[in-house]
Amino acid sequence: MRYKMVVAYDGAFFHGFQRQTNLISVQSVLEDTLTEILKTEVIIHGSGRTDALVHAYGQVVHFDSTQLVPPKNLKKILNKKIYPHIYVSDIELVDETFHSRKSAKGKEYHYIVDIGEYDPLQNNYVLYHHNRIDLEKIKKAMTYIVGTHDFKSLSKNKELKTTVRTIKSFDLDVVGTRLTFKIIGNGFMYNMVRIIIALMLKVGEGKLEVEDVPRILEAKNRRLVPWVAPARGLYLMKVFYEEI
Amino acid sequence: MRYKMVVAYDGAFFHGFQRQTNLISVQSVLEDTLTEILKTEVIIHGSGRTDALVHAYGQVVHFDSTQLVPPKNLKKILNKKIYPHIYVSDIELVDETFHSRKSAKGKEYHYIVDIGEYDPLQNNYVLYHHNRIDLEKIKKAMTYIVGTHDFKSLSKNKELKTTVRTIKSFDLDVVGTRLTFKIIGNGFMYNMVRIIIALMLKVGEGKLEVEDVPRILEAKNRRLVPWVAPARGLYLMKVFYEEI
Repeated sequence: MRYKMVVAYDGAFFHGFQRQTNLISVQSVLEDTLTEILKTEVIIHGSGRTDALVHAYGQVVHFDSTQLVPPKNLKKILNKKIYPHIYVSDIELVDETFHSRKSAKGKEYHYIVDIGEYDPLQNNYVLYHHNRIDLEKIKKAMTYIVGTHDFKSLSKNKELKTTVRTIKSFDLDVVGTRLTFKIIGNGFMYNMVRIIIALMLKVGEGKLEVEDVPRILEAKNRRLVPWVAPARGLYLMKVFYEEI
Repeated sequence: MRYKMVVAYDGAFFHGFQRQTNLISVQSVLEDTLTEILKTEVIIHGSGRTDALVHAYGQVVHFDSTQLVPPKNLKKILNKKIYPHIYVSDIELVDETFHSRKSAKGKEYHYIVDIGEYDPLQNNYVLYHHNRIDLEKIKKAMTYIVGTHDFKSLSKNKELKTTVRTIKSFDLDVVGTRLTFKIIGNGFMYNMVRIIIALMLKVGEGKLEVEDVPRILEAKNRRLVPWVAPARGLYLMKVFYEEI
């Protein structure tokens, strides 16, 4: 039996998604709890890793088990045991061709920046940004990110076959002092979203020009953007398994 | 010099407001930090205690110091040092007749209940309530709380001169699945807001009738309401120093 699960978690309480020796991770909690419930060893395969402090509402994982438990029952039992910092919002049985990572066609991330007064209750959930920023410049810079580009300048990976990715959309919602960046693409390399957000904020602050963005992309040089926005404002919202 | 400060904090990170030996509290962080900054011992006087996990946006404290630091500068230095779980939103110099607790004329608390799907990122900030509740019954029951009553049945204190308090207003805002109870009164005894919220939820669930509320108040018997809503949904929003 192959199970697919949609998982939400508060990244502030884990050392990232991936299992690490002696550190609590989302994967270790899910594997240990499912192994206990199903009484056979469970290996969790995620759609991708998220770093420590990165949140998720729509992480997708799959695992195989010889035990058949109706998904509705499993959801109830599992959520009771993993409470309170992880919540499985959906479980379904899928056929064995489904793979959480290999079948993924795209992902949606949000990044939240707040330019208002500091709220200590929101510290783990948004990036407070108190330098003056020009939203019109940011919006113009965002248009250069959309499309199919070589994102070598905006990622940290070193041993990838290709650094070409397609960004389907990149939007900015502004509600009061809260800026929510919403980005959908066919794939994101390590730290890519956080580097893009850091770049947008530099443009907004006037430390870079809007026209520097296409120049940086064309340069394919990792050293041009040495900034990474903090993990705490980043949310994995959705993994797409149909063409985006 | 007497300083008045308005303080916000995330209750999830402290063992309550009040200093306790070997436990981190809001008072101990403020006292230790101000003592370090002002280089003379600072004693913080709060408008009242809040329990572990209770949040505040409008806690008020005062302290005396022979050191004069312009409030704007002190706010900047202090917030830098107490970051991230406490934030002082305002500091002003007041005359020595002002006392954060004794001068207070009233307080406003909010309590947040969410009846929607569980969100692990909100666990420290709202009470999730998944039994079906009747909001019309709750609204009727709330009207019995407003006014001047002996709240002996709805508090835990044992050695008070009087258990009579005046509730000026008690409102319920509903936005989506989120219920925000807003209560303003001239004083609240230990656990009083959380006991009132628990009582309202029992009425909403149909486990008590609306008309049980005035009967419980009249009975002046602490044993009739053995329930206390969890701390995590409670927020001290404001302390009033003018007649409410």
